[in-house]
Amino acid sequence: MIRIGIIGATGYAGLALFRLLARHPESEIVFLVSGSQAGKRLSEVYPHVTGIGDQELVSLADAKAMTVDVVFLCRAHTEAMALVPEFYERGIWVVDLSADFRMDTAKAYREWYHLAHTAPELLKTAVYGLPELYREQIKRARLVGNPGCYPTGAILALAPLLEKRWIRPDDMIVDAKSGVSGAGRKPSPRPQFVETNENIAPYNVGRVHRHTGEIEQELSKLAGARCPVVFTPQLVPINKRILTTAYATLEEEVGSEELIALYKARYEAEPFVRVMEDGLPETKFVQDTNFCDVAVLRVPGTRKVLAITAIDNLVKGAAGQAVQNMNLMCGIEETTGLW
Amino acid sequence: MIRIGIIGATGYAGLALFRLLARHPESEIVFLVSGSQAGKRLSEVYPHVTGIGDQELVSLADAKAMTVDVVFLCRAHTEAMALVPEFYERGIWVVDLSADFRMDTAKAYREWYHLAHTAPELLKTAVYGLPELYREQIKRARLVGNPGCYPTGAILALAPLLEKRWIRPDDMIVDAKSGVSGAGRKPSPRPQFVETNENIAPYNVGRVHRHTGEIEQELSKLAGARCPVVFTPQLVPINKRILTTAYATLEEEVGSEELIALYKARYEAEPFVRVMEDGLPETKFVQDTNFCDVAVLRVPGTRKVLAITAIDNLVKGAAGQAVQNMNLMCGIEETTGLW
Amino acid sequence: MIRIGIIGATGYAGLALFRLLARHPESEIVFLVSGSQAGKRLSEVYPHVTGIGDQELVSLADAKAMTVDVVFLCRAHTEAMALVPEFYERGIWVVDLSADFRMDTAKAYREWYHLAHTAPELLKTAVYGLPELYREQIKRARLVGNPGCYPTGAILALAPLLEKRWIRPDDMIVDAKSGVSGAGRKPSPRPQFVETNENIAPYNVGRVHRHTGEIEQELSKLAGARCPVVFTPQLVPINKRILTTAYATLEEEVGSEELIALYKARYEAEPFVRVMEDGLPETKFVQDTNFCDVAVLRVPGTRKVLAITAIDNLVKGAAGQAVQNMNLMCGIEETTGLW
Amino acid sequence: MIRIGIIGATGYAGLALFRLLARHPESEIVFLVSGSQAGKRLSEVYPHVTGIGDQELVSLADAKAMTVDVVFLCRAHTEAMALVPEFYERGIWVVDLSADFRMDTAKAYREWYHLAHTAPELLKTAVYGLPELYREQIKRARLVGNPGCYPTGAILALAPLLEKRWIRPDDMIVDAKSGVSGAGRKPSPRPQFVETNENIAPYNVGRVHRHTGEIEQELSKLAGARCPVVFTPQLVPINKRILTTAYATLEEEVGSEELIALYKARYEAEPFVRVMEDGLPETKFVQDTNFCDVAVLRVPGTRKVLAITAIDNLVKGAAGQAVQNMNLMCGIEETTGLW
Repeated sequence: MIRIGIIGATGYAGLALFRLLARHPESEIVFLVSGSQAGKRLSEVYPHVTGIGDQELVSLADAKAMTVDVVFLCRAHTEAMALVPEFYERGIWVVDLSADFRMDTAKAYREWYHLAHTAPELLKTAVYGLPELYREQIKRARLVGNPGCYPTGAILALAPLLEKRWIRPDDMIVDAKSGVSGAGRKPSPRPQFVETNENIAPYNVGRVHRHTGEIEQELSKLAGARCPVVFTPQLVPINKRILTTAYATLEEEVGSEELIALYKARYEAEPFVRVMEDGLPETKFVQDTNFCDVAVLRVPGTRKVLAITAIDNLVKGAAGQAVQNMNLMCGIEETTGLW
Repeated sequence: MIRIGIIGATGYAGLALFRLLARHPESEIVFLVSGSQAGKRLSEVYPHVTGIGDQELVSLADAKAMTVDVVFLCRAHTEAMALVPEFYERGIWVVDLSADFRMDTAKAYREWYHLAHTAPELLKTAVYGLPELYREQIKRARLVGNPGCYPTGAILALAPLLEKRWIRPDDMIVDAKSGVSGAGRKPSPRPQFVETNENIAPYNVGRVHRHTGEIEQELSKLAGARCPVVFTPQLVPINKRILTTAYATLEEEVGSEELIALYKARYEAEPFVRVMEDGLPETKFVQDTNFCDVAVLRVPGTRKVLAITAIDNLVKGAAGQAVQNMNLMCGIEETTGLW
Repeated sequence: MIRIGIIGATGYAGLALFRLLARHPESEIVFLVSGSQAGKRLSEVYPHVTGIGDQELVSLADAKAMTVDVVFLCRAHTEAMALVPEFYERGIWVVDLSADFRMDTAKAYREWYHLAHTAPELLKTAVYGLPELYREQIKRARLVGNPGCYPTGAILALAPLLEKRWIRPDDMIVDAKSGVSGAGRKPSPRPQFVETNENIAPYNVGRVHRHTGEIEQELSKLAGARCPVVFTPQLVPINKRILTTAYATLEEEVGSEELIALYKARYEAEPFVRVMEDGLPETKFVQDTNFCDVAVLRVPGTRKVLAITAIDNLVKGAAGQAVQNMNLMCGIEETTGLW
Repeated sequence: MIRIGIIGATGYAGLALFRLLARHPESEIVFLVSGSQAGKRLSEVYPHVTGIGDQELVSLADAKAMTVDVVFLCRAHTEAMALVPEFYERGIWVVDLSADFRMDTAKAYREWYHLAHTAPELLKTAVYGLPELYREQIKRARLVGNPGCYPTGAILALAPLLEKRWIRPDDMIVDAKSGVSGAGRKPSPRPQFVETNENIAPYNVGRVHRHTGEIEQELSKLAGARCPVVFTPQLVPINKRILTTAYATLEEEVGSEELIALYKARYEAEPFVRVMEDGLPETKFVQDTNFCDVAVLRVPGTRKVLAITAIDNLVKGAAGQAVQNMNLMCGIEETTGLW
């Protein structure tokens, strides 16, 4: 059994992770850390899990005295990079769900997060946890930076086209629509019900949202060229899930059939990517699953290609992908606990 | 007083029109036609308007015997073009909320609606009812084709850029998110609550949705060039309103400040367009109003311009714009009954 | 023109009040007070009202130097009773939307709010602002305690039965379902979107919620007997409106027809109560209106009567009723600005 | 392995059943019948289950030729009673999710469904599938009438009080709030998104809704007396789940502590009933689970007891309870496949 610790167990991602791991057949949850609620049972905070999650929440200090194989960090960025080195040095494998270990360099981190990275040497060893791109590296990794929710949807939409060099690298648009849980659980005026319900709200549009950096980093490596991406995040009144509509300009004269064939070939061996030949992804289709659904088509009368993905932001966009990464790191079947 | 008739009074647009006209100080509702509910009072169908809308619904045959100055047609396309000629020939002004009198030519109508137009000579005299583009023509018109909801949001987003020739005419993307009432009131699996709630669903993407033709027609005239437009309609789980995110490629080296200045100048005299200098449109801001909110910005590090509009699809996208058109046709203050 | 001041203009009730008064033909808004946002324009806080509400928000101190006829207080309880005396003594009429002037006695206030009332002498002069019960007193009042949203729905459901002594005074149940805006605009975990969406949550059930005191006070006076009421407030994921289902035990042998006749007679002259003979109230029917819809029926095979009301909590349950009260106090037509 | 057939696999309950059984470790799905979609794969109808539910839907005729141990019927009432006898006579165990085998007598069926029962002899052998009341009978049953969603929530709320004779049998009120999926998947004006969203709608109130008969039948047996029940179903804009608020009049002088102790003792051995000591049930807590959460309290100053339950109408209120029943009938662990 893989012994597990979760730090930040009472946020949305932490709870989603708990639910997945509680029925994961090869893992055992050793500790659940909550800074503010230590001493309570998880089910006191979330009555949902009464009978399943009656484990006591512990403080970080208490958790450090316990023996685990893998730690999942569900804390805000900056908090994560303060915690990771100690676990890493003790030989514990770390899956960090914050943004702290997603960027390749401290320079890029500073550019997008306006902060100095405090563990720059670990950035070099950390692997970007998107199995569809880095499966072999993840298998050997001891520290994985679990991708952001928006980047997961955006990169999987565009990767096959960039790998083949079928599109221009400098003319991509990512128009993303997200549910509200992406914004986290802290009270703020924005995710208030009345402000959010019956509303569609764009925010941080252009190349402003921090996830832009992560998207551009990964697409640029695939393209072998710098890829500035127009990224438009928008909040819609649903709890979870993201629909990503990506637009690019073809350099090759290919039609929808060839595009679909490309995507089917590229993702054929991927257990969690479903290429749709008929119909289009809807966020409902991926509800509570680790799937990324994708469709691709040529827009007739133009040189544009349109790729649409749907993911559940708390599963493939966070906790599910984190478990997928753990499975790979630990050498067990990648899909364990995720069907 | 302007004597009014509404045909199709029990659909969403018809009801919205009734509500606006019921408190319009210079109009008097003479008849409300409902094919299926004639004989009932409007308030029996919609208890909402009890005490305000207790007027009896009449059959079309009965309505034809009544004297009115203006008829609003809230019927499906094809039904409208069968009805318009008779009213038109009797000298009654017509505002048609269907798609039948929006296209400039019978050829274009056939291309997008796959039907022969049965009143092609009236197509020539009909004016496209977007006051921001055709105010003077509307003032003289006797037949107005009231714009579609998506086209209203899309055209107002891009018009200033095309008029100035600041963007490439052949590289525009319109990514639109709509509430459900756009789909009308007839039962169908798609707008069912459980299928729609907590879901984001793209449909008719590419250049497939019929509104594409209307958008391209108007943008092409502004650009003086053929404008194929990638149009991506998406359904989100709200009752009303549309957020439109439009992307284009700049041919001029202008920044966000110049873009905002352009839009402010272009729309300064427009009573129902609000250019936002700070912040971005959200659909909530235009709830139950005839406003179109618009923001525009240059995406740094790219040649892209991003323009975002928000409208209430039942007001500026349908009934409100229809009243605005009536006001113009009748020579009264354009904003009457709309504040 | 009635010169108006609104204190607490940026809360939900304050904004709703602004919207109503902005188009009220016989009022003029002199000041809008916001403690935290003074100096900004209202439209900077709520872009919705750009072009309509560009008035500057002022501090309370500045407001006190201005001349008005009526002040609306949209502040939390305790804040209101600290402010009312000064305005009252200056001869300004006050409509207080907080709970501070709804209870008849300081003793009752202490019982339900666990606080000493700081203006007990004004409690005696204040009138409970439910026009359907106290129209004549409101006309002569200088201080009105505007009813709570839940009490408005509950009292109008049960009043006719108690006035006639047709039901037992000690066996009433009020099961109420409210939208989220009733909880106010301050960030808290409860009205967060993700916690609230797709959820139904009872809270403060039994005889615990403070509105219980207000309901019992008014029903007891109608019954001429002490009326303990089982009150069950429940939060449902909609923005606005309340559905109240009230149950009571008949002491008279009457059927649904007699019950409906009673309600129709009782509310016949009421401009804002609509008795439904067919069908049942739904909250949608009263959206954005000052109406209270009501249905009543005898449950066959039992001695129970069931009365259901629907109101818009921000209109008849707050701002609309406040305007109705102002109209009465100022001697103008009661419905002015409310249709 | 238990060989399973599902008839009516493409309705909401059928799909929920498929999802549960697909990961049930001791069952094997032999056939999925869909009248209208036979020949398609389940995943063509519901892209959600692509990769998991690619099994072909078959016609009823084809299904009858296959060998199964248990058949689940997810068809409308009247259709079920036409199908059950054939399967029953072939020795196949049947769990019927329709209303056809819930009433104890053909007389009661006729009273509430206004139809003659066509298999009255099977009514006698059928067991009402509420394990908390009839566990031992279900273990020996060959035909189970799976309870309705509303009755499950109502009966579990009131059973302990009636068994103890602590409340009056003739003074119970059940005020229930349901999500929309209870209404099934067929298009109709009622569950349309725009009509339902942002609305609360009571329907079939009093003792009119058919589930009233089922509730009264079971409560009467527990009470040993006739129990007329005021039943008020109400539709709220969520996809799933039911909150039931039940009111009764105490005949014993007991307080909240004794009530909670009673419920805890009564449900202690129940794997799927969670008695809450602090806090109240919210529908979110039971999302996607087979749990029924329950709280009970004495209303101070009255003789009333208030019991609140929450269930997921598609799990404990339909498919989950059906699996629980199958587990019991087949002699395997009751909770298999349900955690």
